Amino acid sequence: QFLMDMIDTTKAVGKGMLSMYQKYDALRFSGYIQPQFQMASARGINTFAGGNFNKESDNRWMLRRGRIRVDYEHYNDQDMPVLQFAFQFDGTERGVNIRDFYGRVFDTKFNVFAFAAGMFARPFGWEVNLSSGDRETPERGRMSQILMKTERDIGGMLSFEPRKKDHPLRFLKIDAGLFNGQGLTGPSDFDSHKDFIGRIYIKPRKLNAQNWRLSGGVSVLMGGMQQFTNVIYTMDNAHAFKVDSTVTNAGKIAPRHYYGADMQLKIPNGKGKGFTQFRAEYIRGKQTATASTTETPGTIPLTPDGKYAPLYIRKFDGAYLYFIQNLASDKHQVVVRYDWYDPNTDVKGTQIGAPGGGLTQADIRYNTLGFGYLYYLNEHLKLSVYYDWVENEATALPGYEKDLDDNVLTCRLQYRF
Amino acid sequence: QFLMDMIDTTKAVGKGMLSMYQKYDALRFSGYIQPQFQMASARGINTFAGGNFNKESDNRWMLRRGRIRVDYEHYNDQDMPVLQFAFQFDGTERGVNIRDFYGRVFDTKFNVFAFAAGMFARPFGWEVNLSSGDRETPERGRMSQILMKTERDIGGMLSFEPRKKDHPLRFLKIDAGLFNGQGLTGPSDFDSHKDFIGRIYIKPRKLNAQNWRLSGGVSVLMGGMQQFTNVIYTMDNAHAFKVDSTVTNAGKIAPRHYYGADMQLKIPNGKGKGFTQFRAEYIRGKQTATASTTETPGTIPLTPDGKYAPLYIRKFDGAYLYFIQNLASDKHQVVVRYDWYDPNTDVKGTQIGAPGGGLTQADIRYNTLGFGYLYYLNEHLKLSVYYDWVENEATALPGYEKDLDDNVLTCRLQYRF
Amino acid sequence: QFLMDMIDTTKAVGKGMLSMYQKYDALRFSGYIQPQFQMASARGINTFAGGNFNKESDNRWMLRRGRIRVDYEHYNDQDMPVLQFAFQFDGTERGVNIRDFYGRVFDTKFNVFAFAAGMFARPFGWEVNLSSGDRETPERGRMSQILMKTERDIGGMLSFEPRKKDHPLRFLKIDAGLFNGQGLTGPSDFDSHKDFIGRIYIKPRKLNAQNWRLSGGVSVLMGGMQQFTNVIYTMDNAHAFKVDSTVTNAGKIAPRHYYGADMQLKIPNGKGKGFTQFRAEYIRGKQTATASTTETPGTIPLTPDGKYAPLYIRKFDGAYLYFIQNLASDKHQVVVRYDWYDPNTDVKGTQIGAPGGGLTQADIRYNTLGFGYLYYLNEHLKLSVYYDWVENEATALPGYEKDLDDNVLTCRLQYRF
Repeated sequence: QFLMDMIDTTKAVGKGMLSMYQKYDALRFSGYIQPQFQMASARGINTFAGGNFNKESDNRWMLRRGRIRVDYEHYNDQDMPVLQFAFQFDGTERGVNIRDFYGRVFDTKFNVFAFAAGMFARPFGWEVNLSSGDRETPERGRMSQILMKTERDIGGMLSFEPRKKDHPLRFLKIDAGLFNGQGLTGPSDFDSHKDFIGRIYIKPRKLNAQNWRLSGGVSVLMGGMQQFTNVIYTMDNAHAFKVDSTVTNAGKIAPRHYYGADMQLKIPNGKGKGFTQFRAEYIRGKQTATASTTETPGTIPLTPDGKYAPLYIRKFDGAYLYFIQNLASDKHQVVVRYDWYDPNTDVKGTQIGAPGGGLTQADIRYNTLGFGYLYYLNEHLKLSVYYDWVENEATALPGYEKDLDDNVLTCRLQYRF
Repeated sequence: QFLMDMIDTTKAVGKGMLSMYQKYDALRFSGYIQPQFQMASARGINTFAGGNFNKESDNRWMLRRGRIRVDYEHYNDQDMPVLQFAFQFDGTERGVNIRDFYGRVFDTKFNVFAFAAGMFARPFGWEVNLSSGDRETPERGRMSQILMKTERDIGGMLSFEPRKKDHPLRFLKIDAGLFNGQGLTGPSDFDSHKDFIGRIYIKPRKLNAQNWRLSGGVSVLMGGMQQFTNVIYTMDNAHAFKVDSTVTNAGKIAPRHYYGADMQLKIPNGKGKGFTQFRAEYIRGKQTATASTTETPGTIPLTPDGKYAPLYIRKFDGAYLYFIQNLASDKHQVVVRYDWYDPNTDVKGTQIGAPGGGLTQADIRYNTLGFGYLYYLNEHLKLSVYYDWVENEATALPGYEKDLDDNVLTCRLQYRF
Repeated sequence: QFLMDMIDTTKAVGKGMLSMYQKYDALRFSGYIQPQFQMASARGINTFAGGNFNKESDNRWMLRRGRIRVDYEHYNDQDMPVLQFAFQFDGTERGVNIRDFYGRVFDTKFNVFAFAAGMFARPFGWEVNLSSGDRETPERGRMSQILMKTERDIGGMLSFEPRKKDHPLRFLKIDAGLFNGQGLTGPSDFDSHKDFIGRIYIKPRKLNAQNWRLSGGVSVLMGGMQQFTNVIYTMDNAHAFKVDSTVTNAGKIAPRHYYGADMQLKIPNGKGKGFTQFRAEYIRGKQTATASTTETPGTIPLTPDGKYAPLYIRKFDGAYLYFIQNLASDKHQVVVRYDWYDPNTDVKGTQIGAPGGGLTQADIRYNTLGFGYLYYLNEHLKLSVYYDWVENEATALPGYEKDLDDNVLTCRLQYRF
């Protein structure tokens, strides 16, 4: 289910959620647990398949996610939603944290607008919004994890989404909101600048008599962070970072600008035989982070001795492609995903690590090819086996001259109610 | 609802809580979420309106509270409560913690006594006990937050509160308990001394034919903390701290003595027009803390180099006044609160910062005037806009010569079930 | 109830759990809270009765456990379980963490096998698996806490346990699983080695016409941890540690081998008069830890300056004996427990602390005699008073020449639904 999906109780009940209904009120409990066993191709690798392995470990049990969620919904006497709110906790051996904690109030005059406030998924793209309980791959791609770690941010969002069955724009959903920026990676907003995020989405449209369904959207994030330092690095034309230390740099806003487009095609294979699905998303833009990483900062970046770290502004792009095929049965499915993330589109290969360039392992492009098999025992239990074949470009950086040995096999059970 | 209120299922159900009843058992779920957007009058201010702003931030989204609560209640065949217990979690982007976690057992012979044990609100005063879901202001006053941060403490408490409708003392509630002292500000009791807290409360009494209702109470906290150091500062007669370093000071109990009185008047404005309400509370006493703060310590106070910090014992007083007025409608309400907290009643103004006095920013009196508007969309959703105008006395301390720029505007939505 | 007990809804309902049933689905909520007041015989003692006292404290209120649990169960149309999963949180003033978070899938062809994955109690012994809500003593014995702190580990386990009433092996339960090893004491597996744990258990068998019931089991844990250092200490024949610093030691697996046997006898005293119960368990084996403790490490042991700490391999044994007697009533019960834990069976008494031996306080044997009284007010409330009389052997180590003053009295209420 989409993280910020419209309330759709038939779908939810179909997933076996337990509900208590009063006439206009509903309290629903749902949850899932994802225990998994993983094997890495080498000890202590860095990976986006559930977090880095410990230095001396190449296999591990882990509870990847343990989610429990309470939804409260209130309807009016036209069966239109009036308000909804959600509490979702994540509990694992690494701690207990919140995930979704938000409330949403619906306009009941036109039944098209809604306002959400709290902690919820950023309305950007498709993969960021697809729930980890429904995704066919164990993790989101590298790009999604680096740009929008844990997906969620705290803010307020206005949505346009017609809720009446006969509304002429019922196929359309538009979200626009303002967010802190740090999301769940920091305890609170560290500057006064807010991120604007907007998305226009066309819901699945029937293409032909075979009921092929196409959907897609465009997203934009116009955000940034205050430059606490005056030392700002950007790329020059000679594949190197150049520094700008103008005193007035401090206090300006460094850009975090993302532009994305996504589409999804779903082709039915026949009754009880599942679907053939294609999904694609492309994102490009500018990201501000530090020398050693391009992850969106959750707190003000500091040097090891506690001073404000220089900021690095890079142009990036990335994409993913999914191919999902049921094996002539609703119960068996294979998935292939290819994704890439190029954190710095101004350099490639051995330009990284060339003397005087100032480039680091944060500038290396990664391509990942993943393939997996899923078995849906019943609506409550899913088994998946997935292999991530991760390839970095060969650079002139010591330790990154060739593809690292950092592939991961994941065997996961997902229990869900 | 009062944090340790008598079980009153009609009230609770009226608030839309979802319940599952068996004949004598009840399990109830309730919760609320408070997303808010705040603007401060300057960057990085210290404030009691939801915690200090980060150094470079003057506006922020935050999830002020995210509470989810499970109550279990068991009744006998005379419909008298036998036992009750509560689990309440608070989840925000800053972490997941417990709030109320207590059990209560009722005497079923006389139906007047009850014994509670666990983590629950200190039975002191009115504001400390009024739930944040019901309060008309976004936060408790500065005094309540400094003396009894997060309100709750762990301990045991005996209550006298007649539960039969015809009991002659049905208007009376008496609480008396022993508590660790550190509450939720520390992980465990750091000394062997316990705090005694007692409260006598007269429930709302009808004053006249217009059904004016007056209630009120008196409270006392006789607690303290062990002096781990022999270096104890108290005020002399010349507006300065004097030190007492008698070796035998170490091991004695430094006082935390609070005396309070409170009253509440509620005047109905007519059917559907709400109420006019006045509330007042005054507290004075002695507080033990350190040079730089008067907050009740949650752990043994230490100096930066890890030694036991000198303790400072100050006489304090403080008060708040609420005026709450519905705007001819149950849905619209305005609130004005004036509160002050004088952490050291032996000095004022430029005596603070005078050479040789040893006084600090912790000794400064603050007056806060807040005013707000509340809109109750329905029983599940409340919108509030509130402005805190915070005024410190002008002192001779560098940086505190005049009123600091530290006002805050809070825009809050509260979703509740 | 046993931590990984078979689904037994009659028992669960008997405990007053609140359930919501659909035809084949069940969602159940349960929980308990254990507030307690404790007095120690001296300030700042180390104890296994709920964690060490703070340095200057000899009495304390604490919330020992605050558990809330959600169970989901799914049955097929023969009323045989198909899958089950559990979410259990522990919330106290010390934080919120997970306890049980696991899923289990049952074979529905033979109805004898089950596979569990996630975080659950290690299938070793009796005391480790008996729930803290049911145990007659406030805490597990010292040995259980040192070897398997918080009882649970993350892994996968295959079980053999016939579920059909007429199965000839219905009295038998066999568990075998692979686990990380660090359990809830560390955030993730720190090496690539997994622990094997197995247990064979004979369920209560009727012995005679008086319906005496005997049960028992044998358990084995064949685990270990990678030696990150080449400095390994073991005991020589002269009651001293000898060091082996062979370079090739690094990378080998240091042993964690436990062998245990347990039995339980339950004698009915007559209707409404409760039971007489005896329980015993003995465990011996080899444990790898460090110089100063024999607790199973949760992370790689480090020296204070951050290097890999030398490992110490010790032979240990330990046991406990319970005698539990109802006082001619289901409501009143006394319990006596004697337990010992000898962390190093190669030395005793003043051999510990002898010059050149390299032995520490971690090598001291402790015997604990505990006795308590329990009052079961109703199925939801239990009161217990329990005294732990802890005796260490007299050694030649400074500070441990005689029995330390470290006894603890615990007064506990347990609220449960």
